Amino acid sequence: MTIDGTLKARSPRIRLGMVGGGRDAFIGAVHRIAARLDDRYDLVAGCFSASPEKALASAADIGVPRAYASFAEMASREARREDGIEAVAIVTPNHLHAPVAMQFLRRGIHVICDKPLTATLPEAKRLAKAAEASGVIFALTHNYTGYPLIRQARAMVQAGVLGELRLVQVEYAQGWLSTDLETTGHKQADWRTDPARTGAGGSTGDIGTHAFNLAGFVSGLRVAELAADVHSFVPGRRVDDNAHVLLRFEGGAKGMLWCSQVAAGMENGLRLRVFGTRGGLDWAQEDPNVLWHLPLDAPRQRLTRGGIGMGPEAARTIRVPAGHPEGYLEGFANIYTEAAHAILARREGRPVDPEVAFPGLKEGVEGLAFVDACVRSSARNGTWVKLAL
Amino acid sequence: MTIDGTLKARSPRIRLGMVGGGRDAFIGAVHRIAARLDDRYDLVAGCFSASPEKALASAADIGVPRAYASFAEMASREARREDGIEAVAIVTPNHLHAPVAMQFLRRGIHVICDKPLTATLPEAKRLAKAAEASGVIFALTHNYTGYPLIRQARAMVQAGVLGELRLVQVEYAQGWLSTDLETTGHKQADWRTDPARTGAGGSTGDIGTHAFNLAGFVSGLRVAELAADVHSFVPGRRVDDNAHVLLRFEGGAKGMLWCSQVAAGMENGLRLRVFGTRGGLDWAQEDPNVLWHLPLDAPRQRLTRGGIGMGPEAARTIRVPAGHPEGYLEGFANIYTEAAHAILARREGRPVDPEVAFPGLKEGVEGLAFVDACVRSSARNGTWVKLAL
Amino acid sequence: MTIDGTLKARSPRIRLGMVGGGRDAFIGAVHRIAARLDDRYDLVAGCFSASPEKALASAADIGVPRAYASFAEMASREARREDGIEAVAIVTPNHLHAPVAMQFLRRGIHVICDKPLTATLPEAKRLAKAAEASGVIFALTHNYTGYPLIRQARAMVQAGVLGELRLVQVEYAQGWLSTDLETTGHKQADWRTDPARTGAGGSTGDIGTHAFNLAGFVSGLRVAELAADVHSFVPGRRVDDNAHVLLRFEGGAKGMLWCSQVAAGMENGLRLRVFGTRGGLDWAQEDPNVLWHLPLDAPRQRLTRGGIGMGPEAARTIRVPAGHPEGYLEGFANIYTEAAHAILARREGRPVDPEVAFPGLKEGVEGLAFVDACVRSSARNGTWVKLAL
Amino acid sequence: MTIDGTLKARSPRIRLGMVGGGRDAFIGAVHRIAARLDDRYDLVAGCFSASPEKALASAADIGVPRAYASFAEMASREARREDGIEAVAIVTPNHLHAPVAMQFLRRGIHVICDKPLTATLPEAKRLAKAAEASGVIFALTHNYTGYPLIRQARAMVQAGVLGELRLVQVEYAQGWLSTDLETTGHKQADWRTDPARTGAGGSTGDIGTHAFNLAGFVSGLRVAELAADVHSFVPGRRVDDNAHVLLRFEGGAKGMLWCSQVAAGMENGLRLRVFGTRGGLDWAQEDPNVLWHLPLDAPRQRLTRGGIGMGPEAARTIRVPAGHPEGYLEGFANIYTEAAHAILARREGRPVDPEVAFPGLKEGVEGLAFVDACVRSSARNGTWVKLAL
Repeated sequence: MTIDGTLKARSPRIRLGMVGGGRDAFIGAVHRIAARLDDRYDLVAGCFSASPEKALASAADIGVPRAYASFAEMASREARREDGIEAVAIVTPNHLHAPVAMQFLRRGIHVICDKPLTATLPEAKRLAKAAEASGVIFALTHNYTGYPLIRQARAMVQAGVLGELRLVQVEYAQGWLSTDLETTGHKQADWRTDPARTGAGGSTGDIGTHAFNLAGFVSGLRVAELAADVHSFVPGRRVDDNAHVLLRFEGGAKGMLWCSQVAAGMENGLRLRVFGTRGGLDWAQEDPNVLWHLPLDAPRQRLTRGGIGMGPEAARTIRVPAGHPEGYLEGFANIYTEAAHAILARREGRPVDPEVAFPGLKEGVEGLAFVDACVRSSARNGTWVKLAL
Repeated sequence: MTIDGTLKARSPRIRLGMVGGGRDAFIGAVHRIAARLDDRYDLVAGCFSASPEKALASAADIGVPRAYASFAEMASREARREDGIEAVAIVTPNHLHAPVAMQFLRRGIHVICDKPLTATLPEAKRLAKAAEASGVIFALTHNYTGYPLIRQARAMVQAGVLGELRLVQVEYAQGWLSTDLETTGHKQADWRTDPARTGAGGSTGDIGTHAFNLAGFVSGLRVAELAADVHSFVPGRRVDDNAHVLLRFEGGAKGMLWCSQVAAGMENGLRLRVFGTRGGLDWAQEDPNVLWHLPLDAPRQRLTRGGIGMGPEAARTIRVPAGHPEGYLEGFANIYTEAAHAILARREGRPVDPEVAFPGLKEGVEGLAFVDACVRSSARNGTWVKLAL
Repeated sequence: MTIDGTLKARSPRIRLGMVGGGRDAFIGAVHRIAARLDDRYDLVAGCFSASPEKALASAADIGVPRAYASFAEMASREARREDGIEAVAIVTPNHLHAPVAMQFLRRGIHVICDKPLTATLPEAKRLAKAAEASGVIFALTHNYTGYPLIRQARAMVQAGVLGELRLVQVEYAQGWLSTDLETTGHKQADWRTDPARTGAGGSTGDIGTHAFNLAGFVSGLRVAELAADVHSFVPGRRVDDNAHVLLRFEGGAKGMLWCSQVAAGMENGLRLRVFGTRGGLDWAQEDPNVLWHLPLDAPRQRLTRGGIGMGPEAARTIRVPAGHPEGYLEGFANIYTEAAHAILARREGRPVDPEVAFPGLKEGVEGLAFVDACVRSSARNGTWVKLAL
Repeated sequence: MTIDGTLKARSPRIRLGMVGGGRDAFIGAVHRIAARLDDRYDLVAGCFSASPEKALASAADIGVPRAYASFAEMASREARREDGIEAVAIVTPNHLHAPVAMQFLRRGIHVICDKPLTATLPEAKRLAKAAEASGVIFALTHNYTGYPLIRQARAMVQAGVLGELRLVQVEYAQGWLSTDLETTGHKQADWRTDPARTGAGGSTGDIGTHAFNLAGFVSGLRVAELAADVHSFVPGRRVDDNAHVLLRFEGGAKGMLWCSQVAAGMENGLRLRVFGTRGGLDWAQEDPNVLWHLPLDAPRQRLTRGGIGMGPEAARTIRVPAGHPEGYLEGFANIYTEAAHAILARREGRPVDPEVAFPGLKEGVEGLAFVDACVRSSARNGTWVKLAL
């Protein structure tokens, strides 16, 4: 219930660059705060926009020492500097993840990449292969896995608290695309509904992958096959804005995944429930400091972040005591800090501590395989299809 | 916000009989309280068990004037009495609903029948045809439609508050059958997992029909087709204990239905969410005095039963002011009181008031068609199937 | 977790009369439903209004066999009938409780009286003395003590689950008198703000007594002294509409009581929290099917009415299984049913079962002593005063 | 609903020092994160402990460039450097706030001081006088005023949304001192229950001042007088661990304040409710992304941080969109960032923007006056006393 001095003590900081995330961007600023929160990174270089002018203006806003107008130039020049960046954060639209990442990883620069990994499944597989070959650390910011109580939930599942898992119910419901916002000049809506930039999946790629990833992270189960009814409700929209998906996991568990961007009035309704032979768990992202444990034979328990009953897996990702909420940025920062553990271990030539956990290439490919399977199943009127992993 | 004197004032009471609901039964006692709550019925006759001894002993417990050992005898003798019953409540296991109902309705005795209507779809259609031909009032106790805020939700949908509906998410999650309770002598678990008495559906018939009915009652939409993954998780169980179902409604809305009796730790987690172009609604049976309205362009509103903003459809089903909770029994009683309005209108030779609403034969057939479609779809590995109405 | 057949089985019904509760009344209809719910009473006589015309018209509405235009006449005539009433429910404005009760109890008719016991403390003491002398059963409908989870909370305190009690925080916040509603012809607001009919206390008498009673019922502690800041916020109001009260209990526990009828937007916000050396409890009337247990050394537990962990004290007051809410009327009915146990025991010449519990004369006098102490303390600018018991 | 680029864009950073907050400390790490979150400060110097060895070891942990073993030396040396610190964060036990602050402010170094301002009221007044004379910026980290929805609540009160205020109910309930934790070597419990280091108030000083400050910040009302029942429940404890306080505000509003550290099972239960003639507000620190608005004549509204209906006062303190929670650290950081606005304005010789708001000397003196009044009132058995401002 106190700040873990060991974990949070200042260690050598990692020199970080960023691609994307300039003016008008949303997620870039989040990555910068996340990188800063635990004081593990120095942001020293950036190419913040595809537009050279905007890239340089954004760099001035942000105050980064080395500004670039092209990410390729950034990669090559930083790789040659003795004090060049050790890691790059990629926060561009999805279709640029792969080309940008390739530039850096082939120069041995570690990558922290926003999700989904790429715009398409084949591209994801190619990137994963190249990244694995390069040996760099590759972190994918499925940030919801950074919430301490998600770590707690995962540890409880692993410890067998729920018995054998039977059911996984996950949903991510938003309402912000209930209207044709993309026709109004809204930058976020614009690129996220453009297949050329966002990829084959709309809601499936943008938030469905988060739900899918979270379900797998906590349950430890892999989806064997799925049946999907993917749809676009808003007239004229070019990507899906809702998906209803049935899941069958390896080992026999079953589940449902719902992702929507037309659930009018919903904000970021990501919720995961897992039930096994001995009990269940229930967690909602909008109230992330609470994890409900539903034992089969005892009253429901309300576990709080940092409260009584926290295991070490959660405790190491916590900054302030129970009753003082942590939120989205802290969870996001946990991914950055976990990646920092790995990057520093690499720098120091030692193995990464086994308790360090963050999503990476495998999860990235799985996410695109999920989108791909949704699209394929839906195209065949909901036939069950296997994930093409 | 006050008791509606007009509605609740004493009117001539209806002479009621009951079949089923004796010792060890659960739902019979609920029906008796529901019948009594608004003082609209006198329970004057009963055949409370299939076992003659138990039937008579139960009658003594309950204190009913005329006890019968056989429902057929009860029907014929009551029909001949001048002061014989005007309506019968049927609270037997499912497979007896039809034979019992037939005995009474062909003698012009109104029927209040527990759900599901019958054990099988063909039986449901036959019963519906016979009941319609007889002209009796037939109420099916899909009791959740009696909750005042469900009336309010339905009225808001009808008034267009949500715009055009897009999404219907409904679930009914219980955990009480997480183990093989039926092997322990538990009477409720015993008959509810016996296909001969409960019908083709286990969780689908017992609670899936409630979820299905509630979704239709509030949304006003009819399911055109569904795709189901129906399963029995507990080894040895003879009926399904979990179903994941995708829904497509006439007119283009889509949805999901989940019913489970193996969601360990859940009690009676019936929840309905409906989203349209202009907003959403969210209601949960375990907190039935609250209805969430999620407007597209305004903060979420917490409507309370009897509170500010109630329309007349809800107000007429309310007994006590806002902030004083009503619950399951009151909602159940509302079905009885609605049926009483219809029965008294019939007695008095006048049309039933248009605001009176209770589920009946149509909803009963639809419920069995839902179970039938789940079974058929699941047998074909989740192929989309149309409801066989 | 099932209906208790033994408890709820039909027993001989008690012949009940009612004084007050006619047209325009609120609480009378609640008493009638409460009496009816468990089938323990037959309402056979009534004097439903101080106005003879209204009394008779109300009797016709309600459908009671014997209607009276005067409660004195009712008492004398019923007492002389062989089939006369055995108990009377008194649901008049407060100032009439004592005169009405006196008429019946001196004839040996049991009394079920709405709270507060009387309009003033001296009157309460006189009535209590007379009632005790008469030997009748006297139940006071502090109905919130009828909620099953309140029974559970009390049993947990008695069993020492919380250790030694330190803190009792209770509040009852309403907002319905935020404006000068009494000037608009609103009948409930009219008499409840008229000192001649309601007594010395406004909010203190109407709802403060409920909060005070509930705190004592659950904690088992008696208030030794209190300091109060009693106020009327609405210009022109003749009784208090808000009270802030500090409490000191015998034995050293301390607490706070807040009652208000000007907490704009609140409905019936009665909430009780109790903390001891080993844990706490938290219960709110608007969500009465949940009781929070806060152990000192374990995560918070959510106890549900009828769910795992219920003791016999709660279980015997429950009708339907966990997850199917019971509410205000069921809690109110529990007081009637508890009183019925006592009345039937008296009729049959046997002692009342020890588990039967309902508020009575002692609690009634304490309630008026609470109001009296609030008024006295506030008149002396919040000096601590002892309860004048 | 998006990150405010203007507000959050990088501006010149402020050179910051810190006194206190070394190994074993809690709040120092919080201040460091808060300073870092929005990238407004560089921590360049520190004296992290009263023990010189620990001070230097902590400096190494934290990684600060200039480490000092004495705060006096730090003040004098930093003041002489051209690149010396511009502001100092004071995070020592309470009794050191004043002596430390005096060293820095008399050299023109701005102060960000943890609460309460000092250990005693006279000391607070002296410090305030000196600080005002010095002209430095002085921020007091009553961090709960940094929560965006607290800003929103305050703006709504100021805009008259609630009408004229009548009631202010505030509480801060913790349970962590339910046992004699201070005898077990627990560092936080040790100094916080030692009158020499914490001051005259225990719970009143540590958390009562937060509650008091928050009530004033949101309501805009000043407490005129109070009546308190202050107590220490744990045997042997040298400071209060619970206080029940009645409040009278200038202008006629009334209220209650409860602070406790023996409410077993509570974590950081800070909750504020405000009611006026036209409605109420309800906010709880453990769920800080929600603000309930209770209009007098409309259903309750659930305002969310960053959601529909946010005014500019809240919007400027928000980093991520609605539905992605922010927490304690973000709220704390808002105080730092607000102070940075003021410090940078001072550096640049321009007036501070009027929308900038953070607690300072006035609030600090008021907090000590609150503790002083509680102690005085309680010593006179709860007599109403005026605040000695």
